[in-house]
Amino acid sequence: MTGWSLLYESFDPPAQKLREALCTLGNGYFCTRGAAPEAAADEVHYPGTYLAGGYNRLESDVHGRIIENEDLVNLPNWLPLTFRHEGSEWFDLHQVEVLDFRQEMDLRHGILKRHIRYRDDQGRITRVAQRSFVHQSRRHLAGLETVLEAENWSGTFNIRSALDGKVVNDGVERYRGLSNHHLAPLEVKRIDEETLFLKVQTNQSEMRVALAARTRLFRDDRELCVNRETIREPSFIGEYLSVQVEAGRPLTVEKIVSLFTSRDEAISECGLAASKEITRAEGFSDLLAGHRRAWEHLWDRFDVEIDFDGSKDLEQDRTLLRLHIFHLLQSVSLNTIELDVGVPSRGWHGEAYRGHIFWDEVFIFPLLNLRMPEITRTLLRYRYRRLDEARNAARDEGFAGAMYPWQSGSSGREESQKIHYNPASGRWIPDNSRLQRHVNAAIAYNIWQYYQITGDMEFLLFYGAEMLLEIARFWASIATWNEDLDRYEIRGVMGPDEYHDAYPDADQPGLNNNAYTNVMVVWILICARRVLDILPEERRQKLQECLGLEKREIERWDDISRKMRLIFHNDGIISQFEGYADLKELDWKKYRRRYGEVMRLDRILEAENDTPNRYKCSKQADVLMLFYLFSADELRQLFHRLGYTFEYETIPKNISYYLMRTSHGSTLSQVVHAWVLSRSDREGAWKLFSQVLHADYTDIQGGTTPEGIHLGAMAGSIDLVQRCFVGIETREDELRFNPQLPREISRLRLKLRYRGQAVEISLDHKRLKLVCTACGVEPIRVGFGNRRAVELCGGEKYECTL
Amino acid sequence: MTGWSLLYESFDPPAQKLREALCTLGNGYFCTRGAAPEAAADEVHYPGTYLAGGYNRLESDVHGRIIENEDLVNLPNWLPLTFRHEGSEWFDLHQVEVLDFRQEMDLRHGILKRHIRYRDDQGRITRVAQRSFVHQSRRHLAGLETVLEAENWSGTFNIRSALDGKVVNDGVERYRGLSNHHLAPLEVKRIDEETLFLKVQTNQSEMRVALAARTRLFRDDRELCVNRETIREPSFIGEYLSVQVEAGRPLTVEKIVSLFTSRDEAISECGLAASKEITRAEGFSDLLAGHRRAWEHLWDRFDVEIDFDGSKDLEQDRTLLRLHIFHLLQSVSLNTIELDVGVPSRGWHGEAYRGHIFWDEVFIFPLLNLRMPEITRTLLRYRYRRLDEARNAARDEGFAGAMYPWQSGSSGREESQKIHYNPASGRWIPDNSRLQRHVNAAIAYNIWQYYQITGDMEFLLFYGAEMLLEIARFWASIATWNEDLDRYEIRGVMGPDEYHDAYPDADQPGLNNNAYTNVMVVWILICARRVLDILPEERRQKLQECLGLEKREIERWDDISRKMRLIFHNDGIISQFEGYADLKELDWKKYRRRYGEVMRLDRILEAENDTPNRYKCSKQADVLMLFYLFSADELRQLFHRLGYTFEYETIPKNISYYLMRTSHGSTLSQVVHAWVLSRSDREGAWKLFSQVLHADYTDIQGGTTPEGIHLGAMAGSIDLVQRCFVGIETREDELRFNPQLPREISRLRLKLRYRGQAVEISLDHKRLKLVCTACGVEPIRVGFGNRRAVELCGGEKYECTL
Repeated sequence: MTGWSLLYESFDPPAQKLREALCTLGNGYFCTRGAAPEAAADEVHYPGTYLAGGYNRLESDVHGRIIENEDLVNLPNWLPLTFRHEGSEWFDLHQVEVLDFRQEMDLRHGILKRHIRYRDDQGRITRVAQRSFVHQSRRHLAGLETVLEAENWSGTFNIRSALDGKVVNDGVERYRGLSNHHLAPLEVKRIDEETLFLKVQTNQSEMRVALAARTRLFRDDRELCVNRETIREPSFIGEYLSVQVEAGRPLTVEKIVSLFTSRDEAISECGLAASKEITRAEGFSDLLAGHRRAWEHLWDRFDVEIDFDGSKDLEQDRTLLRLHIFHLLQSVSLNTIELDVGVPSRGWHGEAYRGHIFWDEVFIFPLLNLRMPEITRTLLRYRYRRLDEARNAARDEGFAGAMYPWQSGSSGREESQKIHYNPASGRWIPDNSRLQRHVNAAIAYNIWQYYQITGDMEFLLFYGAEMLLEIARFWASIATWNEDLDRYEIRGVMGPDEYHDAYPDADQPGLNNNAYTNVMVVWILICARRVLDILPEERRQKLQECLGLEKREIERWDDISRKMRLIFHNDGIISQFEGYADLKELDWKKYRRRYGEVMRLDRILEAENDTPNRYKCSKQADVLMLFYLFSADELRQLFHRLGYTFEYETIPKNISYYLMRTSHGSTLSQVVHAWVLSRSDREGAWKLFSQVLHADYTDIQGGTTPEGIHLGAMAGSIDLVQRCFVGIETREDELRFNPQLPREISRLRLKLRYRGQAVEISLDHKRLKLVCTACGVEPIRVGFGNRRAVELCGGEKYECTL
Repeated sequence: MTGWSLLYESFDPPAQKLREALCTLGNGYFCTRGAAPEAAADEVHYPGTYLAGGYNRLESDVHGRIIENEDLVNLPNWLPLTFRHEGSEWFDLHQVEVLDFRQEMDLRHGILKRHIRYRDDQGRITRVAQRSFVHQSRRHLAGLETVLEAENWSGTFNIRSALDGKVVNDGVERYRGLSNHHLAPLEVKRIDEETLFLKVQTNQSEMRVALAARTRLFRDDRELCVNRETIREPSFIGEYLSVQVEAGRPLTVEKIVSLFTSRDEAISECGLAASKEITRAEGFSDLLAGHRRAWEHLWDRFDVEIDFDGSKDLEQDRTLLRLHIFHLLQSVSLNTIELDVGVPSRGWHGEAYRGHIFWDEVFIFPLLNLRMPEITRTLLRYRYRRLDEARNAARDEGFAGAMYPWQSGSSGREESQKIHYNPASGRWIPDNSRLQRHVNAAIAYNIWQYYQITGDMEFLLFYGAEMLLEIARFWASIATWNEDLDRYEIRGVMGPDEYHDAYPDADQPGLNNNAYTNVMVVWILICARRVLDILPEERRQKLQECLGLEKREIERWDDISRKMRLIFHNDGIISQFEGYADLKELDWKKYRRRYGEVMRLDRILEAENDTPNRYKCSKQADVLMLFYLFSADELRQLFHRLGYTFEYETIPKNISYYLMRTSHGSTLSQVVHAWVLSRSDREGAWKLFSQVLHADYTDIQGGTTPEGIHLGAMAGSIDLVQRCFVGIETREDELRFNPQLPREISRLRLKLRYRGQAVEISLDHKRLKLVCTACGVEPIRVGFGNRRAVELCGGEKYECTL
């Protein structure tokens, strides 16, 4: 592992799934796992390419229950390319003697490289070198180059190149009992003598997908004209090529593939578009050059350069941070701007959660907002397009405004499962996770953060304000007035901690007065009124008219924002929810002794006919999320507004209380805890930060990474660097810095964008330096610690001693 | 005709086509003609709803030639609703005695109203009142309300409501020999007892379209439960409803329709989406209320209030201006933002030009830029998505950069026909209109104007600069160096004047050194270098790297922009193109005597085995376009840069020379000429302005309006008001005013947006008043005449005496 690549220098079948997840290539549209010679496909449980969203189904599970769900769909596999010595079996890594094996994921350029040197049972030694990429700027194209070299033999080589639409969704073991054939064949044909064509359609959403693959052979830079034989099956087309090989003269097989769907813009029909694109596509090296350039340009904006204090162990962390940035940019990039997609919690890398959109945005947007806010804008517009669906969801439940779903699918409706499977007990149990209404807090928070960082008034006028007001309205309608307490309450919801979805022995799911939710609602109601103040008078009037939003409703928001109920334990701990104090303490030692890691304590307890609902135990940060999203200052203001005290000790007290009761069953949990510990327990924070960095690399949850990387945690790790270590805060029209560089890091360099201004930042333990590079934009206000903010224009520098 | 409606108070079958064109309802997505009871459909040559773009075809015309073309497609007709007295024939306006007839297009609210009172052969008198709308803000919904009242009879009424997918494209007579069936049936079904469903697919682009129609009957505000009988055909579904009618008790039939296509966002499958939408849709009046509000909000931004000098004749002009604004907003509106569509020259109102996108944007964008630039941005992104196609087009012709097509279809390729039909001679003749490369000048000009008015740097960074540079590059590559003259030339193109496409008796089409093109190119090459200067250094570098744009290429731009060739007649007239001076004068009198209006002189001459290529005659403004797009000041600078003189008299001299040689064969011509005459010949200008206002209303071209309104001319008429009468100029980061109110107008009021600032303008012959209403945006620079510009903030006023 160097700073820029993920390197594996041995062939290790058991670890192959994880490696492939980490070496996924794509661009948020056209995403592939690995680039193995076809015969290694036995190892490849994720055969191909993913398509975002779009599949509704009503199907029976293994137990005959109905699960209504929406899925991402495995796209046809464009990779199949294999070879053999004429008369032998097709190449199979397991059947040959592997002399050398080297797989490298080049993060800087988005290229997967593989070198294999093997000896077959006839003693023939052959070298195989592969490079593959999914083009970062020409999103409809991908390429696979295979260089074959006979080391000690000559003879006839057969090559098989194909497009395979017979793929299924079988990447997640526990989903395999469910229907997983999502593609229906439409057409296979040969476009010309070197090009194959495949067209399929998703079963239910009727999205059409067309691929064209051009395979060319070269020797000594000259194209070879070879015999080709076509293989045609309903959802598969391939070809056999035969060629003479001479020892020491490498043969290059170049496969270029185009992919279009019926949802692409600026096309007539996707099959025509794929055919046209492949005809116009350059060769492998020209395409690769453009792809490399696109990645270099992306890295120029996104890289975080870290110098460590000389420790070798930490060197790996630099690469892991880059691995995280890389996978973020595989999932969302400039290509996303033209698509109607959200940011899925597991990237487009695996099938877990079926590509649904959750609240992970709250961990991901800070990174995008400060680098390429155009992407955030697109992802927020994805929400805006689903505003009507959210309005209907609210209405159907008897609420006002808009209620976004916990798991959002292509049409924006609630896709959370109603039951889920516990592999530990073999039982299907009710799933109440849809009660996590707090996703509506995250969306509102994200809208405001985007606006705060970009100052994008057009977005606020056209989309942001409307969503934010409708969300505020939903919260105001779900809040109920408790006459006795003279307080508003929110009842029957779930917080981020998914271990608690009901009171023990209650008939109905849901908990009352989740502290995280209630505080967020107060913040949202204040924010909504602020947005109304910011809007130009004319737009405000029109928007209120369209929404039928009246003065007394806004006055009620104000009232709620002053009288929301929070519950505290006697010792000043913020109760995660009403009644939390009455729950039993869990014997963590007992469970850790018995089960080792207890990340999925919920499954363990359920299998014991028990439930986490009875215990003071959390899957992930819940109350502590407040310290993650708000500064102490902001929280103090919110608490005071509600008439509650907020002491200096509130934060560390709550942190230590909840941290010892958390199993980190979500990878997001370590991000939050690393953050909240960063000022009080630097060592503990660094340990958690390291865990986040290694979460997917070592698959700490034991098998979940191959089901899809954990994008929230990946983005969260980089956000820790920028907002926690560099201490960036964007509030009140200012870009503030409050650095707290861990001692493990000697120096940090990164580039940000704030209100159109490009800011280069470098930080060490002595100094913070800023340079504004863009001209022609308004000056920005920059502050450091408690010092008064200064205005910086393009070309100006700011430096301060820590 | 009042200020807000187009009123017809008699039933006039011969004029029906024109009326329907002028009373089209839609929102750039879902567009319908008329709302006639079904039986009047005999008159309705445009049966339904239009779908933008998306149809490629290769087909034989009547003469067995191949015409490759791309088409807009008539969507299924959602309107069919008719009735009869049980036992009689279905209602037919031609078969009854029409006692009263009144059709009103309510421009303010986008509602088509129709009142009919008729007596049948049994002496039964019935009143029919219809209102219909296509929802302006909920773009997937439309509604038709029919109130039936028996005046002097009681009995059983039959009603037939349907969705009709058996539509064809037959709106343009001369296209009828071509294939016109574009929809294939997919599914018809009943969703529930009151709702019908139809799904079809376009033949070639495979776009799916689903409609659901809910029909309800009401009497005295109570819904009636009636017998329904279903009619099912492959591409048609309808129902019969029977109901008892009593004299004097009106019966209301409410038909609400939803429409989705497979290209819509935030859906899974269009049929599911249409079904869901109709289930959730409110009743007619609630929907109508939202629709009216949406239109009121639009008018608040777009209306131009004109007070005339008391002349009754001029009162109509006020309505016609509003008719023009109305149809612009039917074609492009906020709904456009979510769609990948351009702005078609004939709106979505008719089939002429098959929905292709030409250069009309240059006449339309000034209106949008100064009111809702978000729409312009979307329309420019439509071009950006087709940049690769334009690059390929350039490469295929041996040029560099991007060459946008004269007629752009869904995939952005050239859709200009290669031959066209002359009805006057009955001959098919070669069509060289694709040589109008000047569309690439219009696009570049539009990008800059949008940027200049909005200051939208993000657009420039992501889209605008790249397009503009690639267009500049194309022009630099088509320009050739003439060693002898020490000048650059552009050869083998056509200018806007379509009467000239070749030299008389030349083998090859195309003309050399079209003055309009050459000057535009100079402007573009200067502009491209300016854009490079404006871009932040980092972006500039990356963009140049991506485009492979090197210093010497940019230096060549500079060289061309100083040495482009223009040709002048001896008397200082700018030659329309090289060799124009040698053409013969046309005997206009002779032709006018023989043919009356000679707008289509090209057809007349061709039928006489002659050609306009031999004469000094223009279809529309060509050289004069320069005076339309640039101020005298700008032109003087351009000419001087090239080393040519530009005298004060150049403008009037050229105007009078070319105006007398123009047939106004395009409606755009009057717009340009009204503009250029405005300072030298106010009466002439006003006359031309009036012609533009009446162009579609009276169908001055004799039949072209029912084939689609002339959107460029409609928008151009309003642009004349704002940029010519109010004298608005947006240059060098300033909003300048130089009013020249025609004496026919006593007062003008309108609202603009400039760089995020809302500006209310009122103007009479004595004073110009400005009020800035938005706060929180940067101050704008405002100038008047030659006075020094001032800065205006939100809340500030500016007033000056003329």
